[in-house]
Amino acid sequence: MSERPTGLKASKGIELLTFSTPNGVKASIMLEELKEAYGMDYTWQSINIMQNIQKEPWFTKLCPNGRIPVIIDHDKGGFAVMEGLAILTYLTRTYDAEHKFSFTDPLDISRAEQWMAWQHGGLGPMQGQANHFNRFAPERIAYGMQRYTGETERLVGVLNTALEGTDYLVGNKYSIADIASYGWVSVLRFSGIEMDDFPNVKAWADRIGARPAVQKGMAVPSKSPLGNDTYSQKRKDDKEFAEKEEKLKEQIKAAKEKYGYKYASP
Amino acid sequence: MSERPTGLKASKGIELLTFSTPNGVKASIMLEELKEAYGMDYTWQSINIMQNIQKEPWFTKLCPNGRIPVIIDHDKGGFAVMEGLAILTYLTRTYDAEHKFSFTDPLDISRAEQWMAWQHGGLGPMQGQANHFNRFAPERIAYGMQRYTGETERLVGVLNTALEGTDYLVGNKYSIADIASYGWVSVLRFSGIEMDDFPNVKAWADRIGARPAVQKGMAVPSKSPLGNDTYSQKRKDDKEFAEKEEKLKEQIKAAKEKYGYKYASP
Repeated sequence: MSERPTGLKASKGIELLTFSTPNGVKASIMLEELKEAYGMDYTWQSINIMQNIQKEPWFTKLCPNGRIPVIIDHDKGGFAVMEGLAILTYLTRTYDAEHKFSFTDPLDISRAEQWMAWQHGGLGPMQGQANHFNRFAPERIAYGMQRYTGETERLVGVLNTALEGTDYLVGNKYSIADIASYGWVSVLRFSGIEMDDFPNVKAWADRIGARPAVQKGMAVPSKSPLGNDTYSQKRKDDKEFAEKEEKLKEQIKAAKEKYGYKYASP
Repeated sequence: MSERPTGLKASKGIELLTFSTPNGVKASIMLEELKEAYGMDYTWQSINIMQNIQKEPWFTKLCPNGRIPVIIDHDKGGFAVMEGLAILTYLTRTYDAEHKFSFTDPLDISRAEQWMAWQHGGLGPMQGQANHFNRFAPERIAYGMQRYTGETERLVGVLNTALEGTDYLVGNKYSIADIASYGWVSVLRFSGIEMDDFPNVKAWADRIGARPAVQKGMAVPSKSPLGNDTYSQKRKDDKEFAEKEEKLKEQIKAAKEKYGYKYASP
């Protein structure tokens, strides 16, 4: 058991405050990639969001929004960066000197930014609401279930179309544009989305998931039990779990029928 | 009555495809500011989102996500930019040569990006859901009403704290960081938020709203009837409207009580 964090612990390099969520892993994957590519080390602390550590004054002084992930750059006077998109761009602008994960062409810089913003304002918040209504809300509200599962499906459809005939989102090169969406895509099955309906997204996620730095980043602070593979395996191995999940799928389907939801993308 | 757009109409400069929404005005305010500061002209077309023009093939070829606003830079080979955050950064990087609305210091660039991302992934999507559950959903679902009105309040509280002792979000200078959030703040009353509880946000919005370019940008394609001032005036002038709104406020309050919502920021 680690102690409850009460402040920063490093004095040089990058310090990451994070938790094993689809937003958290953006930062840890990026830092693991920079570590592998440039030998750049970093420190991390686990911020248990169930204990609301991210709402404590020492944390909100660094991140006024009270959310993970946050990075602190001790080599820049303790400069703090909140919001996944801003963390990815800050880290690559500052430390990806050879542009291994970012771009130099102004139009490619914008293309990457567009896909990061698309994730940040679309896939992330909407899939987050799908998880809430399908899983975490105190009651199963059909309207919310179909609204957000449906919108997430639409967004994954947009991603699937963007990945037609290309391995990565921008310039056929693995970059921060891909890293931004990978965390959310990696838990799509948990969110009630049929990955098999989106073959380009599935192949893209397998491609990214095979990278050693991605696997390391996904394990900071610890591997999420909600990942697509873990989820699929559990459905095969655990009969009770499989039945519960089947019931949820039926609920989502019924909610869609009740409100006349019809898949269309975009 | 203008005709239904079926494609681009300009051949040089920036062409904006937009509608009078809190996201749409980010782009038009920015373009009006650049026009006033540098004499840079632009063309716009109104995309009536109620008619789903943004889902037509000619539009989704430019914006695969099928959402407004989008800009097309005819002087860069017809380069299209989607997502409000990416539009603001593209326009300032490319055309704000004197950095009147943007920054040169790398840390300030990041600070502005953090607040834009905060809006793009937080205030925008959450206030959008509040509007949906409070106004547009086919039924009033108490759980959704309190969840999103509450989260919007929390976010406006974060903004209010950030604006303590400063006129603008980054470096006490009006910038793209402020423009990003202004559109959503300008319809907070419609979303069920008591502006008077957030005096720094109110003063900041008044400051921004007094700018001629902002007023022009807010009128592209046409002034929204949901703005805070219009809304307040209508509540004073129209007794029936005021009663309906009072009823909605009571519904939101009851929804909060039902689920034990308690305002806390962050």
